[in-house]
Amino acid sequence: MAPKTFYAVIAGVGAGTGRSVALKFAKKYPVALLARKPESYQSIVAEIEKAGGTAIGISTDVTDQKSVEAAFVQLKKEEPFAKSGLAAAVYNASGALGHRTPFLETTIETFDLALAVNPRGLYFFAQSALPLLLASVPDSPIPPTLVVTGATASNRGSARFSAFAAGKFAVRGLTQSLSREFHPQGVHVAHVIIDAVIDIPRTKAYAVNNGAPDGKLSPDAIADEYWHLHNQHRSGFTQELDLRPYVEKF
Amino acid sequence: MAPKTFYAVIAGVGAGTGRSVALKFAKKYPVALLARKPESYQSIVAEIEKAGGTAIGISTDVTDQKSVEAAFVQLKKEEPFAKSGLAAAVYNASGALGHRTPFLETTIETFDLALAVNPRGLYFFAQSALPLLLASVPDSPIPPTLVVTGATASNRGSARFSAFAAGKFAVRGLTQSLSREFHPQGVHVAHVIIDAVIDIPRTKAYAVNNGAPDGKLSPDAIADEYWHLHNQHRSGFTQELDLRPYVEKF
Amino acid sequence: MAPKTFYAVIAGVGAGTGRSVALKFAKKYPVALLARKPESYQSIVAEIEKAGGTAIGISTDVTDQKSVEAAFVQLKKEEPFAKSGLAAAVYNASGALGHRTPFLETTIETFDLALAVNPRGLYFFAQSALPLLLASVPDSPIPPTLVVTGATASNRGSARFSAFAAGKFAVRGLTQSLSREFHPQGVHVAHVIIDAVIDIPRTKAYAVNNGAPDGKLSPDAIADEYWHLHNQHRSGFTQELDLRPYVEKF
Amino acid sequence: MAPKTFYAVIAGVGAGTGRSVALKFAKKYPVALLARKPESYQSIVAEIEKAGGTAIGISTDVTDQKSVEAAFVQLKKEEPFAKSGLAAAVYNASGALGHRTPFLETTIETFDLALAVNPRGLYFFAQSALPLLLASVPDSPIPPTLVVTGATASNRGSARFSAFAAGKFAVRGLTQSLSREFHPQGVHVAHVIIDAVIDIPRTKAYAVNNGAPDGKLSPDAIADEYWHLHNQHRSGFTQELDLRPYVEKF
Repeated sequence: MAPKTFYAVIAGVGAGTGRSVALKFAKKYPVALLARKPESYQSIVAEIEKAGGTAIGISTDVTDQKSVEAAFVQLKKEEPFAKSGLAAAVYNASGALGHRTPFLETTIETFDLALAVNPRGLYFFAQSALPLLLASVPDSPIPPTLVVTGATASNRGSARFSAFAAGKFAVRGLTQSLSREFHPQGVHVAHVIIDAVIDIPRTKAYAVNNGAPDGKLSPDAIADEYWHLHNQHRSGFTQELDLRPYVEKF
Repeated sequence: MAPKTFYAVIAGVGAGTGRSVALKFAKKYPVALLARKPESYQSIVAEIEKAGGTAIGISTDVTDQKSVEAAFVQLKKEEPFAKSGLAAAVYNASGALGHRTPFLETTIETFDLALAVNPRGLYFFAQSALPLLLASVPDSPIPPTLVVTGATASNRGSARFSAFAAGKFAVRGLTQSLSREFHPQGVHVAHVIIDAVIDIPRTKAYAVNNGAPDGKLSPDAIADEYWHLHNQHRSGFTQELDLRPYVEKF
Repeated sequence: MAPKTFYAVIAGVGAGTGRSVALKFAKKYPVALLARKPESYQSIVAEIEKAGGTAIGISTDVTDQKSVEAAFVQLKKEEPFAKSGLAAAVYNASGALGHRTPFLETTIETFDLALAVNPRGLYFFAQSALPLLLASVPDSPIPPTLVVTGATASNRGSARFSAFAAGKFAVRGLTQSLSREFHPQGVHVAHVIIDAVIDIPRTKAYAVNNGAPDGKLSPDAIADEYWHLHNQHRSGFTQELDLRPYVEKF
Repeated sequence: MAPKTFYAVIAGVGAGTGRSVALKFAKKYPVALLARKPESYQSIVAEIEKAGGTAIGISTDVTDQKSVEAAFVQLKKEEPFAKSGLAAAVYNASGALGHRTPFLETTIETFDLALAVNPRGLYFFAQSALPLLLASVPDSPIPPTLVVTGATASNRGSARFSAFAAGKFAVRGLTQSLSREFHPQGVHVAHVIIDAVIDIPRTKAYAVNNGAPDGKLSPDAIADEYWHLHNQHRSGFTQELDLRPYVEKF
């Protein structure tokens, strides 16, 4: 019998976007949170459970194929995920890699990590998630969805952002290709260009946009967008949108 | 005393996007519907009023500066618009102009009409709407919003679409400029690329996307997007998004 | 008998790009120079003739259909143009319209002029030039060419550049459409994004790029590009390229 | 004493673009040809030498950091390269990787190879070439240049081209970043979007553009463009251009 219940999986969960997205999707779905370190997801799992939701955290290194595959294998064994269909997958892993580093000082380790966390990590995640999303198409009331987090560097290669630009451009190209291949099969694949500093604990001290109120992008606003994209009818899919504070220069 | 109530104005109202957008915004706001001919808005006004909403139709030629200005003058005299602030303005005027016409057969009348309905019409509409939207910034609970309808031709100049491409590219450039100027002042200006045939009475017979179900873009889906854009917090404005059916080639 | 000789026509001739383009193309072709005022082309005609070339200046208002048509009618009467085929047409009319003007202070006169000089002027020019370029395809040793001058505002609508952005986006869209329609017919249509302040008498005093040497774009460098585009084999047409000084921020 | 002679290095030399570029640049410079296998460069070296030029072939695996570094070490030991400055570097390595393969059938080996040949290979090549190009700035009569070969997939992620799109988008992002960082230092970095099937022995049998004459892109036309880019004055650098046959759909 086809699954009647659905869940969401979010890769790249921490103090910012990932947490807000997890809390948002947890209002409707059990959520699986993938992060490298338990301390990145433990408090969010607790927060969700306290609010009456269901969440599981799985220590996952998105740069490691086996680790990503193992996470999805675990979901097939754990209830309520095992008996449910995958409704939404969010790839939010990123990392500020090589920012403001001159190219000739950018090491191959940094460059490789930018590729590993960005296109390769998305490759691993999508290889596991897309078959599950496809399998949910017949029964899901709304189109199963893969949302991918982009950045300013997704379509602008700035000076001294060589590694990050390579990684983010690659993610954009890969996501476009996935949209064109999987939209006709009923799976919605969307790319969101986050053109902003996100308002998270780590950026509290950053003087952004002259300290204007709401001058950093609220992670809750990002989560609202991802949730909105997930709820789009197949008659009207958005492939890409940008998101930035009202005061952001662009 | 500052206005506590708000309204919306929609230019380019007919059987498709304009009607759906009007119905959507009328659930929260009194709406003013601008269209060239009364038959384009009369039934929509009736539909809104029957559902308990408030609507006014104003015969307006967006290609005529005086006509657009007169529409806004009328709103300043009619209640509940006169005492309310403008919360949302939608520029949806377009028209399939010169489609599939070889350039050398495209008359200056067609070319001029494409410019008149697109960048010039938006210029007139925005000249009247933006001061009102700016005036609503202090009191509006969500950022006052101008949403502009684009098309496939907004960023792709196809062969034998010269007039339409000129008009739609111009609208995109103008809207980008308005976003960059008015976002920091608190008014959200967004551009939506409608990359699809819209599912309206006029296109019923069109064989689109091999007749796939939901293969045309539902005008209600467009209205949902416009409403969503209007509700974005100033911490995260979208400047541009695309929208197309899952089966649409792009 | 088919024409064995060819000429070039350049619209928008003044002290900068137009002059350099005229001098460059005059090394191979008789050139017709279209400008609103005789003082814009007289000295260039003299310069070309002194160097042994052939040139004619025609007072032409590109915003006036009849004026543009009259210019081409005159060319059909004047030798050596009358007996020659059109090998290259350059649309270089522009004008800094509404630069740095807030949208609400941008008059409809300015906005209209931006549309008139940009997409409408190109429409008139292309309506006259393209039939002649098409007619040259069989006999021209290199593909007949239409080159169109763009600007930073061609694909970036900056704040307070609303009129200019509308005009330049429109030109880009129109040119793309022309490329897609006329390339398969053997006429090369190219768009050049001039992302720079051009080094002309009028800009001598501008402090650009901190006064770096070669920090403004040499009009001769632009002319070299246009000439190069004209000489591309039909096996490899460039539709668009950008051009800016090495020190230009972008 | 500063070098008075200059050379060029080309990575990714085979029967098509690489050969034509090598022959073109060899008319002015000694050229170093980097390719994985000797059979890819041997006949070209012979062809250049027969024509009176100077060439060296170095077996190089662009996906291997040590191999790329070793190639440049060898150039520092071999005359006339050792005593010369680097004037031009061309990164042309690519490879049709995963073309028309559904994403779920695209192996990690293919995906990794697409990243290895594209952004990682360019990273290695640029790490070695850019310091040499920078060193040539003071003495080179024209700006030292790095030209990078792109493809249709550089800014379009087509369905079933996931690996290739990831690789080519990454190269575009990386190249943009290098342009923005190195242009102000006097090194020209350009990206060429080859939007075509190239006319080489391997594609002879391909029915492209309905078999139209010149319906495939001539590698000599590509070489002409690269040479032209190398010769641009610093007053006007092109960062990106496209190139496709007149009959190519785009």
